[in-house]
Amino acid sequence: MSTSTISRLRSKSAHKNHKKATARPKLVPKPASKTKKDVQYVYFFGAGKADGHGKMKDQLGGKGAGLAEMTNAALPVPPGFTIQTEACREFMRTGKTSSGVSQQTLSALARLEKLQGQKLGTGDNPLLVSVRSGAKFSMPGMMDTILNLGLNDESVQALARKSSNERFAYDSYRRLIQMFGSVVLEIPKSAFEEVFDAEKKKRGAKLDTDLTANDLKQVIVDYKQVVRKHTGKDFPQQPLEQLTMSRDAVFRSWNNDRAKVYRRINNISDDLGTAVNVQCMVYGNLGETSGTGVGFTRNPATGAKEFYGEFLMNAQGEDVVAGIRTPVHISELHKLMPGVYNQLRDITSRLEKHYRDVQDFEFTIQEGKLYMLQTRNGKRTGRAAVRIAIDMVNEKLIKPEEAIFRVDPNQLYDYLMPNLDDKGGDVTVLTTGLPASPGAAVGQIVFTANDAVKMAGTATDKKPVVLVRGETTPEDIHGMEVAAGILTARGGMTSHAAVVTRGMGKCCIVGAGEIEVDEKKKEMRVGDLVLKEGDWISLDGTTGRVIKGRLNTVPASPDDPDLKKLMGWAEPFRKIGVRANADIPRDAVTARAFGAEGIGLCRTEHMFFAEDRIPHMRAMIMADTLEERKAELAKLLPMQRADFEGLFRAMDGLPVTIRLLDPPLHEFLPKREELMVEIGKLEITDPQSARLKEAREILRRVEELHEFNPMLGLRGCRLGITFPEISEMQSRAIFEAAVNVAKEGKKPMAEVMVPLTVTIKEMANQAAIIRQTAEQVFKEKGAKVHYHVGTMIELPRACIVADEIAVEAEFFSFGTNDLTQTTYGFSRDDIGTFLPAYVERGILKNDPFASIDQKGVGALMEMGVKKGRKTRPNIELGICGEHGGDPASVEYCHKIGLTYVSCSPYRVLTARLAAAQAGAADKLKVEGGRTK
Amino acid sequence: MSTSTISRLRSKSAHKNHKKATARPKLVPKPASKTKKDVQYVYFFGAGKADGHGKMKDQLGGKGAGLAEMTNAALPVPPGFTIQTEACREFMRTGKTSSGVSQQTLSALARLEKLQGQKLGTGDNPLLVSVRSGAKFSMPGMMDTILNLGLNDESVQALARKSSNERFAYDSYRRLIQMFGSVVLEIPKSAFEEVFDAEKKKRGAKLDTDLTANDLKQVIVDYKQVVRKHTGKDFPQQPLEQLTMSRDAVFRSWNNDRAKVYRRINNISDDLGTAVNVQCMVYGNLGETSGTGVGFTRNPATGAKEFYGEFLMNAQGEDVVAGIRTPVHISELHKLMPGVYNQLRDITSRLEKHYRDVQDFEFTIQEGKLYMLQTRNGKRTGRAAVRIAIDMVNEKLIKPEEAIFRVDPNQLYDYLMPNLDDKGGDVTVLTTGLPASPGAAVGQIVFTANDAVKMAGTATDKKPVVLVRGETTPEDIHGMEVAAGILTARGGMTSHAAVVTRGMGKCCIVGAGEIEVDEKKKEMRVGDLVLKEGDWISLDGTTGRVIKGRLNTVPASPDDPDLKKLMGWAEPFRKIGVRANADIPRDAVTARAFGAEGIGLCRTEHMFFAEDRIPHMRAMIMADTLEERKAELAKLLPMQRADFEGLFRAMDGLPVTIRLLDPPLHEFLPKREELMVEIGKLEITDPQSARLKEAREILRRVEELHEFNPMLGLRGCRLGITFPEISEMQSRAIFEAAVNVAKEGKKPMAEVMVPLTVTIKEMANQAAIIRQTAEQVFKEKGAKVHYHVGTMIELPRACIVADEIAVEAEFFSFGTNDLTQTTYGFSRDDIGTFLPAYVERGILKNDPFASIDQKGVGALMEMGVKKGRKTRPNIELGICGEHGGDPASVEYCHKIGLTYVSCSPYRVLTARLAAAQAGAADKLKVEGGRTK
Repeated sequence: MSTSTISRLRSKSAHKNHKKATARPKLVPKPASKTKKDVQYVYFFGAGKADGHGKMKDQLGGKGAGLAEMTNAALPVPPGFTIQTEACREFMRTGKTSSGVSQQTLSALARLEKLQGQKLGTGDNPLLVSVRSGAKFSMPGMMDTILNLGLNDESVQALARKSSNERFAYDSYRRLIQMFGSVVLEIPKSAFEEVFDAEKKKRGAKLDTDLTANDLKQVIVDYKQVVRKHTGKDFPQQPLEQLTMSRDAVFRSWNNDRAKVYRRINNISDDLGTAVNVQCMVYGNLGETSGTGVGFTRNPATGAKEFYGEFLMNAQGEDVVAGIRTPVHISELHKLMPGVYNQLRDITSRLEKHYRDVQDFEFTIQEGKLYMLQTRNGKRTGRAAVRIAIDMVNEKLIKPEEAIFRVDPNQLYDYLMPNLDDKGGDVTVLTTGLPASPGAAVGQIVFTANDAVKMAGTATDKKPVVLVRGETTPEDIHGMEVAAGILTARGGMTSHAAVVTRGMGKCCIVGAGEIEVDEKKKEMRVGDLVLKEGDWISLDGTTGRVIKGRLNTVPASPDDPDLKKLMGWAEPFRKIGVRANADIPRDAVTARAFGAEGIGLCRTEHMFFAEDRIPHMRAMIMADTLEERKAELAKLLPMQRADFEGLFRAMDGLPVTIRLLDPPLHEFLPKREELMVEIGKLEITDPQSARLKEAREILRRVEELHEFNPMLGLRGCRLGITFPEISEMQSRAIFEAAVNVAKEGKKPMAEVMVPLTVTIKEMANQAAIIRQTAEQVFKEKGAKVHYHVGTMIELPRACIVADEIAVEAEFFSFGTNDLTQTTYGFSRDDIGTFLPAYVERGILKNDPFASIDQKGVGALMEMGVKKGRKTRPNIELGICGEHGGDPASVEYCHKIGLTYVSCSPYRVLTARLAAAQAGAADKLKVEGGRTK
Repeated sequence: MSTSTISRLRSKSAHKNHKKATARPKLVPKPASKTKKDVQYVYFFGAGKADGHGKMKDQLGGKGAGLAEMTNAALPVPPGFTIQTEACREFMRTGKTSSGVSQQTLSALARLEKLQGQKLGTGDNPLLVSVRSGAKFSMPGMMDTILNLGLNDESVQALARKSSNERFAYDSYRRLIQMFGSVVLEIPKSAFEEVFDAEKKKRGAKLDTDLTANDLKQVIVDYKQVVRKHTGKDFPQQPLEQLTMSRDAVFRSWNNDRAKVYRRINNISDDLGTAVNVQCMVYGNLGETSGTGVGFTRNPATGAKEFYGEFLMNAQGEDVVAGIRTPVHISELHKLMPGVYNQLRDITSRLEKHYRDVQDFEFTIQEGKLYMLQTRNGKRTGRAAVRIAIDMVNEKLIKPEEAIFRVDPNQLYDYLMPNLDDKGGDVTVLTTGLPASPGAAVGQIVFTANDAVKMAGTATDKKPVVLVRGETTPEDIHGMEVAAGILTARGGMTSHAAVVTRGMGKCCIVGAGEIEVDEKKKEMRVGDLVLKEGDWISLDGTTGRVIKGRLNTVPASPDDPDLKKLMGWAEPFRKIGVRANADIPRDAVTARAFGAEGIGLCRTEHMFFAEDRIPHMRAMIMADTLEERKAELAKLLPMQRADFEGLFRAMDGLPVTIRLLDPPLHEFLPKREELMVEIGKLEITDPQSARLKEAREILRRVEELHEFNPMLGLRGCRLGITFPEISEMQSRAIFEAAVNVAKEGKKPMAEVMVPLTVTIKEMANQAAIIRQTAEQVFKEKGAKVHYHVGTMIELPRACIVADEIAVEAEFFSFGTNDLTQTTYGFSRDDIGTFLPAYVERGILKNDPFASIDQKGVGALMEMGVKKGRKTRPNIELGICGEHGGDPASVEYCHKIGLTYVSCSPYRVLTARLAAAQAGAADKLKVEGGRTK
């Protein structure tokens, strides 16, 4: 496993309790910071005793807390001190370091010098330190580090003498200048690299290590020149100046672009700040008995209980990371230095037991002596998380009710999706878009849905295709169905492409803005590169990487005994139901296999886009009279009925919530602008053609239905009220299907759902049609079935008048996609136009379409819950849509007392675990309360 | 004044207390109606005594209450009885008349027969009655009436004998069959008209009165044939059957289309129901000493204190209405029958004193004896309402604090607008649209804004034009500016055309769906009729009538001593401020003249559509780099500064609230579909042209900015956050202007308003730019001005987190247009697609864009008020947008404690009076509480 893969692994524990930790700052602006004499800014650690301890991550960051804890446990940790996060926050507020921080830094340094019997950068045995960032949550490589601090023109000579290794000393010095130059003085790295490469060329050196001490002395002279040229000043020779400047640079690095992006992706608050760790240097590059390495107490990819890691002898940490030399498997250390190896195994085992979780550690061996530089809970894949949790229960390290919290519900997706295997081979990342739906897709590019169908071929001769579009629309659904993956240039995390593919469990990357898609020319451009239809492309839905060419994938295996075991522990805690959104029987079967307890949302409109149906749908919309409309609807009726029969059969005994037609009608018609262009062209080329006449006629109706903001137009129940015959036909199809399936001996449980109501009158109007149709069908068929009539609550007004609507509605299902759109006034299809600026400027931390905005949208939901229950105490309350599969949202739905959540079939596992965790958290709190 | 004009006059009093009367029905569905034995369904009146009285309009309707009151006052009223509205409501619920109603009807009839010594339709002296509707609020001509009930083949002969007037008797009978046939039996009126016309032709008769008794007997035979043919049954000869069928038909007529539309327009609840008045017939057509007439105690058009009315001798009411004979001025009655005239003047004077308001009355003289048939508060024009209120104070009939309630604030518009003079001449109504902005416009048709400018000509040679469009966009603004009026085929009451024209005080009709506009051919079609550019057209903005040809207008005179007097009484009661929405100095001056106390909304985007600016705006939007954008903004800066200087000068000493750029940027760019068509055509005709290249380049940027739902996209503060340089330029223009104007010795009061916020972070981001720019400008100019920074609260989330936003915002202005759109999920531009169905099915009674939806949108506003004040107790709270000029909304804003309302300059008077009424209502309630 490469270092970059390790850094990508996610840890559940790092995210636990996160919400509480990132509570909003107080509303009232903070007073200007003063020197708070009584604040402890600096925490010392060394000689078996630390001021802090492992639970002080808020103040000391993960690294600082780990160092303190290890010191207290008498582990071999180079001594030093941690400047706590409050100092960073002060720095961010005021732009400078307060005198309190400065004074305490000096005192701690003095204490360190006394303990070591050295002076920073001074004397025959100069003290050298590292200055490293360390935030509460691990942000690997995002912030800055400075090593070898304390070296200058004099102390480098002392180091050379003391180490008897002149080359080592001067190499350390040039590294300091380079790191300090780029990090503290913000000189482009390239300026130093040019100097170094020139020296290597001059000396005919292939490797860095081919340069001699004298060569490095020349590099140092040139480096200092670079510093002078870029800053107008000399490289600071005063060790204390080096230290204070480095400390402040680390504070500043909290807000570099990398760090900000990482925090956004990982949902870490910008307000936390980083701690700074100042620690005595130890050197892994002092010869053949020195070395450095990283490791895990268990395999973070598979979860196997095996000591896992890699190291390099005679090397510094950055050499491992840089990949210049290939690291060696940790087992080799046993052969080379069995004593050190056993000590490391012993220490890390103790650490794992102490923290009761897998540890990710860093160590250095200096002249045969082992030093621990870091330990933290290790990030791991979903499969590894499950495996480790189960193993640790078996090992009696943790209890089953703890184990269920050791897996991030989102990680269960690993069980469902194939992954891109990007080891080996040429990985050319073309661009990175939004990772809308995870997994991997490898296939040949197509640019239209029809081409996708054509190129994908038949079931017996299937070819993988990747559909690349500007954006997708419901009319692309057949192409999306056959594609291995979807890539769009526009759209956000809840765009059509994103929503549909997540429902399909299909890899999708959206909003890859650097891509230009020319559907006419059938090509896409990324910068100068042009890819044409048929070219191979690989999508990594987990990271959003778009990769040129044909990579391999690693298939998924959802039926896993580990998973079953964990879910077996989790399920008894779950209080809230989990249903799935499914429009076709196949999805329903899948959902049920994943444990769905019903269908929470069947979008009937998806049934109308099929090839054999859309002509009737179009004809229905184009009809000028009620009679014509009814005739077309009559043709659609048997098809709808068959759909519903399939769903009722698949869900025998479980509720099936069917939403009446919802989208704007023009979605079913040809695009307005395309018609206009066609007409414009025909007027020139063939003004007498029948097609021109026809196109004009179609355009007339399209214009009538054209809306400026279709999201807020003729859709939802407004359709069923304007064209009652549609609601009637759909109700008839539902009830005929239910009666037919009931006659087969099955138990259909229909819940008919009216979309987009805002008044009781809308609800009453549609409920009357539905109930009358039901009675009619029951009379005709001579049989009855049980059913409910309810509504989606998806507009702010519906929440406000929920007490009225509940008079007619037997159930509510919160449609938080639309509710979020209207509460914020954000169109989820258009949010891409301003989201980048919002994220960059820190205005919107989380995408409210990904996770429920509890403060805003939640306030309306809670109003809806309260008012709905007031009128109808036993009302069934659900949520359908994207949020139903988001763990934080599921937890919230549990908290506000919904009856169930509904999500895409491929999120059912995630929702079940999230719901179980929410229930367990409640229960354990209560039990804790009882026992204490 | 013609009868049709009278019927159009509106009365304030009829609308007072309306809201309370139309409270929603209970949430729980009503139980099926039973016969309630103790309910009094029928109220008798006659012989100087009535069961009911004048205050029972809820039960008896306006007419029934008036008849009861007049009877009790011993006025000559033909006796009868009123079946109360509850019977109608029961009928609507159950579809039939309950036995309680039937029994009480029979008892009342028996009592009437006893009083009169007659039997209904039986014997030598048969009792004949009228059956009339009569709802709480006058709905003139909307429901049905049946006269002469009780006539049949036998009683007609008795009537002939008794009246010694055979022609009269048979004419009465044929009228009964005709009315009963069309109203009760629902036979098309034309079926009877054909018979009648054929008979006239056969007899060579010109006038109806040319037909003899014998001719009429033949008509009756033929009429009965019509009845048999259409219903399969004979015309009912049983008088009682005639009565019950007529009564139920009147109940039914409550829900005919005319009535429903009238109620919607006049904001009358569908739940009220009508009463039915059964009253002895009196005949004005029994010879030369008989007659009938209508009148007002004062002139309802001017308010002059003059006995006003018209009558016809030897005629029935319907002859007056039908306009076959020209009615005679009431003064002639004095000459003909001085006794009757004096009695009528005496009675009506007493009625006016009794009701303390102008009376609109109907009377009949039967053989020299006067009967009063109706009295009610008379509808009047706005000018008349003011004049009458003042006169009545002078006459000590009412007090000044009552007088201010005698004028509907909406009626003050009469002082501002010219009106169409449709008396005389040929009035061909082409169609009727939505009356978006009142007044009148007469001009020649143009179809584009540019043509409007061209055809309107110069100031010295000005020609009136009416701009006819499918719908208008901001780019039409220059055409709208020069047009006398605007007519659009699409759009609702708050569409672009509607909002802008109301702001301009310009007549506008929108959503005239029967019109097809072909801008290319420069023609419009209504049915078969084609009107071309240059044809004359007249718009009646008060009724929505689109009239062919060139009518005259009656000009307005806003500076009126009566108005000043009334406003002088009203103003001291007003607690809430009134500001105006104004974008240019001219509007600001107008607003100030009308009494605006500041500008509540200056929409800066309107400043960018001017011809000399839009190129820079476009270039700014098309720019790829920040530098290019800044360069274009720099060109716009001096223009914006000059705009603001003008506003600050005009509003010297009063606040000017300036909203930063709000609309989606693509509004400033060419239309996407037009570019696509142009490109499509050029690809055929001129594929090498430079224009094709250019158009493609423009389209690229247009596509980037294209949004599916621009209302929910990149607009509002999202623009200023994405392009901070725009907010910076606008802030600079504001503060430079303010400082410049302050140096002139004036007092500019800038309130800088950030649009569309939903989080405190957005507000903080924009507030920082504004405040930093202010400091910068003050430093540069060496002078400071006072200013505030605030935000619009126009999305649900902003109301919910108003406590947070108020940390940064010094004022809120509720933008209830957008808030209504998102609370309902209704796009105001698209509501036309489903509004007709909603109105027809009774789902939406009031347009929430016309008057604040207090239950839904209001709940959010109240939340915003409460939370805003919690953080900042003295926060200034306003409302801007369409609702600010709606009296009911103004009253609501007063109630929830806003600081001010802001409306278009031409609504300032209305808002001031509405606010004063709200304040007075509060005060009088309190004082009442103290004294009692």
